[in-house]
Amino acid sequence: MLMNLVTNLLKIEHPIIQAPMAGGITTSELVAAVSNSGGLGMIGAGYMTPDQIREQIREIKQLTSKPIGINLFVPNKFDANEDKAKSANQLLNPIREKLNLPPKNHMEHPSFHDALEKYAEQIKVVIEEKVPICSFTFGLPSKSVVAELKQHHMVLMGTATTVKEAIEVEKSGMDMVVAQGSEAGGHRGSFMNDEQDNLVGLMSLIPQVADNVTIPVIAAGGIMDGRGLAASICLGAQAVQMGTAFLTCIESGAHQVHKEAILHAFEDETIVTRSFSGKPARGLINPFILSMQDNEKDLPEFPVQNALTQDIRKASGLQNKKDYMSLWSGQSPRLSKNQRVKTLIESIISDVKNTIGKQ
Amino acid sequence: MLMNLVTNLLKIEHPIIQAPMAGGITTSELVAAVSNSGGLGMIGAGYMTPDQIREQIREIKQLTSKPIGINLFVPNKFDANEDKAKSANQLLNPIREKLNLPPKNHMEHPSFHDALEKYAEQIKVVIEEKVPICSFTFGLPSKSVVAELKQHHMVLMGTATTVKEAIEVEKSGMDMVVAQGSEAGGHRGSFMNDEQDNLVGLMSLIPQVADNVTIPVIAAGGIMDGRGLAASICLGAQAVQMGTAFLTCIESGAHQVHKEAILHAFEDETIVTRSFSGKPARGLINPFILSMQDNEKDLPEFPVQNALTQDIRKASGLQNKKDYMSLWSGQSPRLSKNQRVKTLIESIISDVKNTIGKQ
Repeated sequence: MLMNLVTNLLKIEHPIIQAPMAGGITTSELVAAVSNSGGLGMIGAGYMTPDQIREQIREIKQLTSKPIGINLFVPNKFDANEDKAKSANQLLNPIREKLNLPPKNHMEHPSFHDALEKYAEQIKVVIEEKVPICSFTFGLPSKSVVAELKQHHMVLMGTATTVKEAIEVEKSGMDMVVAQGSEAGGHRGSFMNDEQDNLVGLMSLIPQVADNVTIPVIAAGGIMDGRGLAASICLGAQAVQMGTAFLTCIESGAHQVHKEAILHAFEDETIVTRSFSGKPARGLINPFILSMQDNEKDLPEFPVQNALTQDIRKASGLQNKKDYMSLWSGQSPRLSKNQRVKTLIESIISDVKNTIGKQ
Repeated sequence: MLMNLVTNLLKIEHPIIQAPMAGGITTSELVAAVSNSGGLGMIGAGYMTPDQIREQIREIKQLTSKPIGINLFVPNKFDANEDKAKSANQLLNPIREKLNLPPKNHMEHPSFHDALEKYAEQIKVVIEEKVPICSFTFGLPSKSVVAELKQHHMVLMGTATTVKEAIEVEKSGMDMVVAQGSEAGGHRGSFMNDEQDNLVGLMSLIPQVADNVTIPVIAAGGIMDGRGLAASICLGAQAVQMGTAFLTCIESGAHQVHKEAILHAFEDETIVTRSFSGKPARGLINPFILSMQDNEKDLPEFPVQNALTQDIRKASGLQNKKDYMSLWSGQSPRLSKNQRVKTLIESIISDVKNTIGKQ
């Protein structure tokens, strides 16, 4: 059951993909450890500059000769509403005060044009550095980008949170689709609707997606161990993508406070919020989220809100205060461990073999 | 894998339980067909009078000699706020007008005392009629009730939506716990918190519950076929409870309009709403839910709101208008079929055997 089209296409031993978590979590050590352990390590490059990407790819190549992947954000048009940014700053300034940060009353953010340019540069680097696998979030690459990447024999993955999105992912020429369930931590990969109140759980999402696409399905959301991998395969997936399980690993670059928070959290202590970035994402409930909750619908869009909260997230991290950090987590924190990547992957594989063996 | 503690305790052939859907769905034909096919048929008796319960049990006994189960609602104290009821009626009257119903400006509902009395009578009937299995929703029976039912050798099940609730279910003396994931249609069984925005998906819920209780776990939510049963067992459950999959069966008493709506719905077209009953429940999005959405938090509690919307739901059904009916559904409507119960159960079992066989 563990060798299939996905492991063949990705040229990996185990159908385990490390989710490309953005924001410094996917250190070279993490990515290399996953690939060296037979899974697929992935760089969460959404926020990275082309130079940073090039540097990290080269660093990882010193650590592993196995395939690695990279994830990019597809830029979306957005409404840079000054009034919304002003209102958001009014909510954020009392938090800035608590962190000894100066108040802000302006809005600084990359323009859509800047984002498109950066994205084009990111793609150029990925091709030049010969990364064999590329996944996309928040949308789908254009036909010309897909054609270019295919010319370089890259394996492409898209992210979908509904059947409709999965069908679009297939139509766009992606080789496989990551079906992201409601359980997943971090940003929702939704690109056809931004709803927060009808997120579909994996038990429902995987079989319905699998019935409606012909490309392989990768399950993402709340999967932490062999039970989750075995269940995903029963439901019709061919591999899993795991974020939180790798985030708390020793090799991950997540802030220690973030790791500790997950290691001590319960399954019902996460929520989907737009308050950090302007896009819905699941994280542990903390004072930041609660303080923004009543005004969530009026917050600026991504990446404006993301730019507005940047100083707060950074200062909160530097001061080791979990109250104002984005503590992204899926819904299975009770299953998280602080262990080496190799231990995690080996235990998943041995558990799956036991699970199947017992039946 | 398919014979285990749950099938032994319940004395059934297959680990498949038909969810005890209240409100006329669990006809005697449905319950008997499930039990006759080797699963456990259950009466959704929450809203039924003791006499109706007695009558239905006797009717089912004419149709099957296999074990059946019954579900009761544990009464909760509630706040019968006149102002809230008035505001709710103001929202409901325009809908009443569309259905040619007279406006209402008063509140009529059973008192907590009435509910307790009815519950005591329901239990008496269940014992007298020797129903071997009883499950509870919205709370847990008292120690004295548990002791009495145990004296009659009944197998007891509680419902939990979080690990904390599952631990309480075990502590209360229940023999097994139904872990209800966010995917589930109909009422949330939550009894320790009423949140709607941190519902836990089954991929996360089952293993975390299984790790924290010693009684067997039954998975509920979005499970429709052999893939869901196999996955649930991989995750640590010993059986599944399926609602929507049975609701669209030929033998179910659900309104034809309700069945048709599910048969044509997509996975992202459901939402959790308090608007019909005052308690959160998942159903297909329709004009009724949308019209109440902005005022959801201010609606009266269960059972006040349930009593207030009764005329509307009834008239909408009689007029075959799905716009104002409660179209309860889980998140897997694309997997629903209009078929005989026997066909459904046989296909689940054969699919599970294939799934496991292939691995």
